[in-house]
Amino acid sequence: MMHQAPTLTNVIKKEIPFYDTDAIRVVWHGNYLRYLEDGREAFGKQYGLEYMHIFDSGYYAPIVDLHVKYKKTTTLGDTLVIETKYIPSKSAKLMFEYVIRRESDNEIVLEAETTQLFLTREGKFELSSPEFLVKWREKIKNLH
Amino acid sequence: MMHQAPTLTNVIKKEIPFYDTDAIRVVWHGNYLRYLEDGREAFGKQYGLEYMHIFDSGYYAPIVDLHVKYKKTTTLGDTLVIETKYIPSKSAKLMFEYVIRRESDNEIVLEAETTQLFLTREGKFELSSPEFLVKWREKIKNLH
Amino acid sequence: MMHQAPTLTNVIKKEIPFYDTDAIRVVWHGNYLRYLEDGREAFGKQYGLEYMHIFDSGYYAPIVDLHVKYKKTTTLGDTLVIETKYIPSKSAKLMFEYVIRRESDNEIVLEAETTQLFLTREGKFELSSPEFLVKWREKIKNLH
Amino acid sequence: MMHQAPTLTNVIKKEIPFYDTDAIRVVWHGNYLRYLEDGREAFGKQYGLEYMHIFDSGYYAPIVDLHVKYKKTTTLGDTLVIETKYIPSKSAKLMFEYVIRRESDNEIVLEAETTQLFLTREGKFELSSPEFLVKWREKIKNLH
Repeated sequence: MMHQAPTLTNVIKKEIPFYDTDAIRVVWHGNYLRYLEDGREAFGKQYGLEYMHIFDSGYYAPIVDLHVKYKKTTTLGDTLVIETKYIPSKSAKLMFEYVIRRESDNEIVLEAETTQLFLTREGKFELSSPEFLVKWREKIKNLH
Repeated sequence: MMHQAPTLTNVIKKEIPFYDTDAIRVVWHGNYLRYLEDGREAFGKQYGLEYMHIFDSGYYAPIVDLHVKYKKTTTLGDTLVIETKYIPSKSAKLMFEYVIRRESDNEIVLEAETTQLFLTREGKFELSSPEFLVKWREKIKNLH
Repeated sequence: MMHQAPTLTNVIKKEIPFYDTDAIRVVWHGNYLRYLEDGREAFGKQYGLEYMHIFDSGYYAPIVDLHVKYKKTTTLGDTLVIETKYIPSKSAKLMFEYVIRRESDNEIVLEAETTQLFLTREGKFELSSPEFLVKWREKIKNLH
Repeated sequence: MMHQAPTLTNVIKKEIPFYDTDAIRVVWHGNYLRYLEDGREAFGKQYGLEYMHIFDSGYYAPIVDLHVKYKKTTTLGDTLVIETKYIPSKSAKLMFEYVIRRESDNEIVLEAETTQLFLTREGKFELSSPEFLVKWREKIKNLH
């Protein structure tokens, strides 16, 4: 997972709910995908790229690639710190890197990476960057 | 939960998956709602009232009332027997009763009851029985 | 759902996440059970009755009765206000009432009620109120 | 995802349930992780490596690496064919490859790969292959 230094990052916290734990008393691995989506949406809110903005611009942004490396288990009483980083790209896609840490000891719980493409309302993949994305890339340049 | 004798019943089986268990090693109570929906849809398939038929007839059938009485916990290795019974009604709604049993000892795991109303695509509740439902009620009379 | 006036109440807010919506673009009815548990646990945190406290006292508190009345659907962009009220009781059980409202227009989305009993680690139901609960009831008297 | 030809394969079918769809009327990407676990457990049942066998042998087998490539969306009315292949390995881990196809047109919906390590009840990773796994590897040799 080597990339140029990500420059836009969002951080949220989440306490482990009982309903996300499984029979070995840890969070079931599949439930972290909701936490990644929470992180991605919180990033979107902070930087103007939330789901509804993409949708209102005429697109869906389905995940086409997901890679998760699970390092530690977490359980009831743990608070997680979810860090979502934007990976700059010039092609018609969105890439994010995630690091989830346990707040108490700062241990890395998991690292993940997602890639999203853009789908029109008619269900076709957009091969060049949608206009809203081009504008957004311009906007975030001014954040540095 | 006293009703006139239900006459249409569907039965399916389900093995408990690991991902539905929680930190006390039993199925988390909220996950049974998926099993109830599995039962309702299996009923629909058997008797011609599946989700897509309702949808294609121009309606959604949202649940407006749900009552669950949990009797026993279930865990990995258990197989459940889900029984879904249609509760006859003349008004514009669908009512089902459910009994979930553990296959090994036939113990009742839960009893439940749901009520669904009909919502048009425009988001309005239908106050009289939709035509497709009237037809369906006629059809099932011939099943006896 | 008539009870004597509940005296202890917790309120939390929740934004609808994409992953909780279903194919008719509203929150799937079963997902609200996680929101109810979020409300119950937030109540526990506020008043000293959280899951871990019950667990550390030697008990599980499984839900034995659940009743939900769905009034309105909610969707992406909505923020919910989840109100959890303790229903006083002298027997060996915990009862809560919930009202979930949509923040934008204050409309009631659902009303619910849950009953929990106490199960020992050996899996037996406790017929008289556990000591930790008796102490807690004493403690909350002083909150008035 | 290049490996030597997998030799043990399990195939199951699954109809898309309503509750797994999201607001864009397709299965939410995170829900496929339950289908992968369904496939893994069905493989285990067929070849004697189910979750309870691993657990009774003194181990958990947490997923440490997950990679999913999503190719097509699926929706209500679709039936999926889930193929789970065992990837032979001599080290203390379990690797599976998955291909999920849509039954109607045989299109590939997703490809995935998981790696599991072995954790003792005390929470330590087992560095050499557990005895039950060594025996299982011997047993499956005779399947050819």
